Amino acid sequence: MIIGNPKEVGLNFDRFNFLLVIGTTDVSLIPGITVAGATPELTHFTPAADAEYLVKGRCEVIRGVPVTPNGIPTPALLTRASLSLTKGIVGVAVSGARVKPRSIPFIDLGGEPGKDIRKYSMDRQVVRQLLDKAVTLGEAMDVGSTLILAESIPGGTTTAMATLAALGYNSLGRMSSTSPQNPKSLKEGVVRLALRDLPQDTLGKLAKVSDPVLLALAGIAAGFKGKSVLAGGTQMVAAAAVLKELFGKRAVIATTKWILDDKSADMLGLASEVGVEVLASHVDLNRSRYEGLKFYERGYVKEGVGAGGAMLAALSSGFKEEEVLNRMDQEYELLIAKS
Amino acid sequence: MIIGNPKEVGLNFDRFNFLLVIGTTDVSLIPGITVAGATPELTHFTPAADAEYLVKGRCEVIRGVPVTPNGIPTPALLTRASLSLTKGIVGVAVSGARVKPRSIPFIDLGGEPGKDIRKYSMDRQVVRQLLDKAVTLGEAMDVGSTLILAESIPGGTTTAMATLAALGYNSLGRMSSTSPQNPKSLKEGVVRLALRDLPQDTLGKLAKVSDPVLLALAGIAAGFKGKSVLAGGTQMVAAAAVLKELFGKRAVIATTKWILDDKSADMLGLASEVGVEVLASHVDLNRSRYEGLKFYERGYVKEGVGAGGAMLAALSSGFKEEEVLNRMDQEYELLIAKS
Repeated sequence: MIIGNPKEVGLNFDRFNFLLVIGTTDVSLIPGITVAGATPELTHFTPAADAEYLVKGRCEVIRGVPVTPNGIPTPALLTRASLSLTKGIVGVAVSGARVKPRSIPFIDLGGEPGKDIRKYSMDRQVVRQLLDKAVTLGEAMDVGSTLILAESIPGGTTTAMATLAALGYNSLGRMSSTSPQNPKSLKEGVVRLALRDLPQDTLGKLAKVSDPVLLALAGIAAGFKGKSVLAGGTQMVAAAAVLKELFGKRAVIATTKWILDDKSADMLGLASEVGVEVLASHVDLNRSRYEGLKFYERGYVKEGVGAGGAMLAALSSGFKEEEVLNRMDQEYELLIAKS
Repeated sequence: MIIGNPKEVGLNFDRFNFLLVIGTTDVSLIPGITVAGATPELTHFTPAADAEYLVKGRCEVIRGVPVTPNGIPTPALLTRASLSLTKGIVGVAVSGARVKPRSIPFIDLGGEPGKDIRKYSMDRQVVRQLLDKAVTLGEAMDVGSTLILAESIPGGTTTAMATLAALGYNSLGRMSSTSPQNPKSLKEGVVRLALRDLPQDTLGKLAKVSDPVLLALAGIAAGFKGKSVLAGGTQMVAAAAVLKELFGKRAVIATTKWILDDKSADMLGLASEVGVEVLASHVDLNRSRYEGLKFYERGYVKEGVGAGGAMLAALSSGFKEEEVLNRMDQEYELLIAKS
């Protein structure tokens, strides 16, 4: 199911590049803030593992694939399955990651890993260079292909919340979460601490409270001359806000129905305040053969690694929901067979 | 002028990716072996500087742009000027470089810098991983676009000579050089030392005498499902030989007329022994307004950074030799204005 009309916003997926931007922040080490990894420490391996799994179907930086503490697999599974049906070209960019992929080539954007935003700031000069490189990368991408930009950065909804707040949006209490029990008060406490003594200028604000992936996404989208789509949840609203603030450019977001259904968040309200269009896609995982995937229908994980955008691309390319579902089940089967 | 028929070998440049693969070896530190840098030490900065200049028109890792000891500018100038006329997409991959670009994004292929092949070998495991990543990168490139693969690795004709010799070709005395005074006996002495105690297996041989750029080029070309062209001089014959040996795949080379005219080398003879087609392009730099460019017509530099392939792409896209020449003169003018 597709919610919204890709053609109406000028998107088509006859030819597209899918670029996963990965990075880490030390926010993800705060216990309870994210479930994008089996333990807080393992969250630093999740983005590199997501990237390896997306490209090769297996990980080298960790055993198995990234899972939540209760064993639900990374949304990269949905992304990989969906993209495997299409002719899309998959690439990975690393922007400020403590752990980098080992088994795959990737575009190195430099940057530094995001900080524990309660206490520390990224270096302003490094942030500026990262933005420059991201713009250069965007300029170098094929204008004849739609560019789907995706993310993997555990703790990313918290830095996104702080970023939106720093840019003047009322984001507290409105961001989604990988967990069905959105740890809102924990996140908001982190954001409130991060917002104290905020620099006056935009670059200083972003260095203090945002993360290297948000910045890279905004820069790449700014440099790209063709049609791009930010594939993700409420985090992508923050990327769109940075894109608007720094480059005066508008964005389109592709997300999942699971994000729109998230009662603990307000994706559409936030998007409307930033002035960004939202499309969503859905494959009914209640019909999956595997319990691990059915959890997605109960509010677990919801989005990440551009799952919504990848499903949108597959469904827009003429594949039926059932075909996409079958590929997801096959991918799940392969995981089980390997473990 | 185009020598050969691109269409006959299945090449068209309506849509293409130009990927510059850069790396270094410690061979370039041997005094006299290369002029791809103002001093032996600076040769390690040349590839990163070439990449930055190609993408952005200026370098960050060095002042100015790479020049020979007598001040002739890098062939990246010819490449940049030619590509600027086309719709080609330019990217950079780093494969075993001591110095990496600072101001641009690049694809990181890992690998380790090449050794002084007289004494040391690359690590076999690292070589294997590099080949794997290069294949993965090739698989990820747009099959609908022609892929032009270029190189910048000072001392590369020496490792290429050793590689061809190790694979059983009679390469001694037949490789070209950046210098009009091809330092043949120096190169051959290095190669003879490198070939002592050569391992029996292909991977071991390549780890001992080749370089990370040759390996990456072969791997990318192997993984790529569309049409690719190796853009360079006699080095690319070695890349083609590795491609044939490891992957059983044939290649097409695009070079310059300056290489074909090189009496100190035997590009066509070598290419025929390896079984690779050769195309060449030419823009008459005697008609340039600048002495620095006219030197190319006197056998200086000759090729590098895919200059021959880039000129071929521009000329094949319908641009006249004069238009390409004018863009080169403009680029030269910009260099002078900046310095």
